Amino acid sequence: MKSHTEYLKFHTKKRRDYIHITPQVESAVKKSGIEEGLAFVSAMHITAAVYVNDNESGLIHDIDEWLEKLAPFREDYRHHRTGETNGDSHLKSLIVHHEVIVPVTRGKLDFGPWQQVYYAEFDGQRAKRVIIKVMGE
Amino acid sequence: MKSHTEYLKFHTKKRRDYIHITPQVESAVKKSGIEEGLAFVSAMHITAAVYVNDNESGLIHDIDEWLEKLAPFREDYRHHRTGETNGDSHLKSLIVHHEVIVPVTRGKLDFGPWQQVYYAEFDGQRAKRVIIKVMGE
Amino acid sequence: MKSHTEYLKFHTKKRRDYIHITPQVESAVKKSGIEEGLAFVSAMHITAAVYVNDNESGLIHDIDEWLEKLAPFREDYRHHRTGETNGDSHLKSLIVHHEVIVPVTRGKLDFGPWQQVYYAEFDGQRAKRVIIKVMGE
Repeated sequence: MKSHTEYLKFHTKKRRDYIHITPQVESAVKKSGIEEGLAFVSAMHITAAVYVNDNESGLIHDIDEWLEKLAPFREDYRHHRTGETNGDSHLKSLIVHHEVIVPVTRGKLDFGPWQQVYYAEFDGQRAKRVIIKVMGE
Repeated sequence: MKSHTEYLKFHTKKRRDYIHITPQVESAVKKSGIEEGLAFVSAMHITAAVYVNDNESGLIHDIDEWLEKLAPFREDYRHHRTGETNGDSHLKSLIVHHEVIVPVTRGKLDFGPWQQVYYAEFDGQRAKRVIIKVMGE
Repeated sequence: MKSHTEYLKFHTKKRRDYIHITPQVESAVKKSGIEEGLAFVSAMHITAAVYVNDNESGLIHDIDEWLEKLAPFREDYRHHRTGETNGDSHLKSLIVHHEVIVPVTRGKLDFGPWQQVYYAEFDGQRAKRVIIKVMGE
């Protein structure tokens, strides 16, 4: 078994942002030299997420509006008694989930035609990281 | 390390459908000959999901109604400016998540008593696929 | 490739509860002797979840209130025709997701500064289990 680990860094200008990272995942798989296995891709923070969906700006706009409806910013989260103001960011992260596995077959991401990997930032304007760990043979 | 990859095909009659695929996952694990490892099961589409829950028709009815409430069909999704009409299908896929890992111990799915694997179709009546990749020894 | 499997047992006093299990995951990784790999952590039940987020009591209170809003207890779930009363527990489990992967690098959980593993019980007061399977080298 081989494994290869990389870290991506983000520092978004906006509080919420959606960043396409399929090229970085492809690059990590290539560097790993792994032909059959899995690429694990995960936010290393509890106010961000990693998901697989469409690379289409209208849909990303819909996702952002929808998440704000399901897990809205509010002043009165109990979490804010600690001095934080990002209660909604934690809940958005829980809905979208912070990690995905991408299958690797014959050295390539084994994705369907529209699948793309995204980093979703829900509490940006600060340094954040994503871990990519490729395992296989 | 051994690995084994299979693809399942679906073409549902209904737009939304919930299909029990535990037998197919068990069959892939058996074919793999893997005794200790993980079976990765994932939709290859961004308007479908794979989840683990109960094989009970009432619950499946509840899940479908609940998803329609949380991520309703609407005319006015921004995504529809591309000509698509399936904005809700993408959001339903994000809630349920498109992939699961099933643990494999002594050659069997290491599930609790009621866990079953389901393929959830949110934009059917067309050809769709699921990937199963079993890895281990 | 090495693998190591453990089961945690829970029997909560409350119907809903949130239990910090990072120490148990760390202990399983240590016992496995694995330096590079993945730790899979999953509820073995369909009315519970495993997630990664903050170890902060205010946030846990917010998560619980928010889940009750998104997937409320109701008398009239179709699932209840079977005699069950836990329809909401299944839906809460679907939102939060029942499993996570924790990356293992140089023998340690490769987590960001605030990431912690939690077992979320949505239908407690009975015996439940979590599986931890560590794989790698």
